[in-house]
Amino acid sequence: MEIQFLGTGAGIPAKERNVSSIALMLLEERNQIWLFDCGEATQHQILHTKIKPRKIEKIFITHLHGDHIFGLPGLLGSRSFQGGEELLTIYGPKGIKEFVETSLSVSTTYLKYPLQIVEIEETGIIFEDDTFEVQVELLEHGIPSYGYRVIEKDLPGKLQVDKLINEGIQPGPIYSQLKDGEKVVLEDGRIINGQDYIGEAKKGRIVTVLGDTRFCQASMELAKDADVLIHEATFSEKEEKLAFNYFHSTTKQAAQVAKRANVGCLWLTHISSRYQSSLQIQSLLQEAKKTFSNTYIANDLVEIDVLREQIEL
Amino acid sequence: MEIQFLGTGAGIPAKERNVSSIALMLLEERNQIWLFDCGEATQHQILHTKIKPRKIEKIFITHLHGDHIFGLPGLLGSRSFQGGEELLTIYGPKGIKEFVETSLSVSTTYLKYPLQIVEIEETGIIFEDDTFEVQVELLEHGIPSYGYRVIEKDLPGKLQVDKLINEGIQPGPIYSQLKDGEKVVLEDGRIINGQDYIGEAKKGRIVTVLGDTRFCQASMELAKDADVLIHEATFSEKEEKLAFNYFHSTTKQAAQVAKRANVGCLWLTHISSRYQSSLQIQSLLQEAKKTFSNTYIANDLVEIDVLREQIEL
Repeated sequence: MEIQFLGTGAGIPAKERNVSSIALMLLEERNQIWLFDCGEATQHQILHTKIKPRKIEKIFITHLHGDHIFGLPGLLGSRSFQGGEELLTIYGPKGIKEFVETSLSVSTTYLKYPLQIVEIEETGIIFEDDTFEVQVELLEHGIPSYGYRVIEKDLPGKLQVDKLINEGIQPGPIYSQLKDGEKVVLEDGRIINGQDYIGEAKKGRIVTVLGDTRFCQASMELAKDADVLIHEATFSEKEEKLAFNYFHSTTKQAAQVAKRANVGCLWLTHISSRYQSSLQIQSLLQEAKKTFSNTYIANDLVEIDVLREQIEL
Repeated sequence: MEIQFLGTGAGIPAKERNVSSIALMLLEERNQIWLFDCGEATQHQILHTKIKPRKIEKIFITHLHGDHIFGLPGLLGSRSFQGGEELLTIYGPKGIKEFVETSLSVSTTYLKYPLQIVEIEETGIIFEDDTFEVQVELLEHGIPSYGYRVIEKDLPGKLQVDKLINEGIQPGPIYSQLKDGEKVVLEDGRIINGQDYIGEAKKGRIVTVLGDTRFCQASMELAKDADVLIHEATFSEKEEKLAFNYFHSTTKQAAQVAKRANVGCLWLTHISSRYQSSLQIQSLLQEAKKTFSNTYIANDLVEIDVLREQIEL
């Protein structure tokens, strides 16, 4: 599980930062990539990565502002052109369907894969299967803006078959008892404990990606104990009033969310183009670090690993 | 009058060539810039030029395929964000209005300038004022695709006031007679000829930009005697069948149009991404040059002057 930032700017593209998009790479876990937002030229950014558009199977849109959606029609078309055949699902606010369908129909773009568009009507769990679950909640922006909490399910330890065979315990019905952690009496009278033959469990990871938002309670809930929180920080802490008026957050507010939610690390994105020099960016970072030390500022194309902790279940 | 190519590729963006857009810079002539097509990330390309989006006052769309229009909503929004206040007019096929209006309304993009969208219903002259005229004709593509002929009006020579005053001929009603090229008898008996006091006339230039098309008659008409013809050349001359089947042109066909229309120079664009190496590009160029020697292949961000010939009217 890795995260790659495809666009980390706000509002309009700049040479240094493209408009919003984030890729969650689940290649080992599902052989899929999920995108969060798709600003104009997201497909252009992808040309500079290892991402194959046909592997993108879910796109979660946080809100409908142009800098978060105008790259969708082009990406959908190119995914088809480049051999994508699997179902692609877009999740987003009401209106995303009209935008995508109008763009594709006016441009007579024919997709060779099925496209499903899920408009969010109720918050809560919007996707769940054996290995992942995605929760969505409403944030506070001028228009409906959502945050997504991606929860990887815990992976129980596996039965250590090699170890059993080494100890002369042959496969058979007792294997399923051992796998359930039961004690078993062998034919030779030995008593063995299944729990001694189960590998380490792996705790599922949590990644929270928030759309544009003011500081709000829903952010804390979505981010609770997340391994990675990706939070907008359009403005410096000095511009709290501006941030409030434009329904955005400051560096400090993002850090407060991270601290209260007890996250593993905080990545700031959606940086206003008013902050361009590395000095200014360093200053934004320091503002956040005062409140939450494990903070980073995202740059376009930066890739991070989401590490898996090993736990005892 | 200059032309800058913003995107010279076909279908989908590549690192080397973005999707279609061409800027016609009329800064000296009108303090305006006109765009032809606006593929995704046209505004990103503009970041690497001297073009100010607020100077873009007309956008001519050749046809509705995504690689020619998906950059429109973002560019329109950014033009507003960057202080554009003057009327912007978009000309294009039926459907362009629905695409633009849906994109802007779904994304709640508010423009601080008036936007006019002219859907082409009849071919012929679609714009005319004192200095320029634009003619549009239908080409042959899978969907309606237009070519535009931009005609600068001839600029008559100016009355050489300095010369008249030097010769002791003072301003008065006779100046307007002289300006009309008439012969005039002065009070001192001298007879002077207005034509001797009129500067050189400047011939208007013609730039023809064609949308995607098969080899067709309308191309020749639009390009007749143009100073610059910009023609798609999606394929090599070896792929004439492919070009026909996909409603595109080969290098050779573009050169044939240039030759028959007697243009000044031919610029090839909309190059398929199958041709990437400089050897392949050189080969495409040579194919065209065999038929029409004054041919060039456009690359992204290349800028050319459209020279003004001085003529006697």
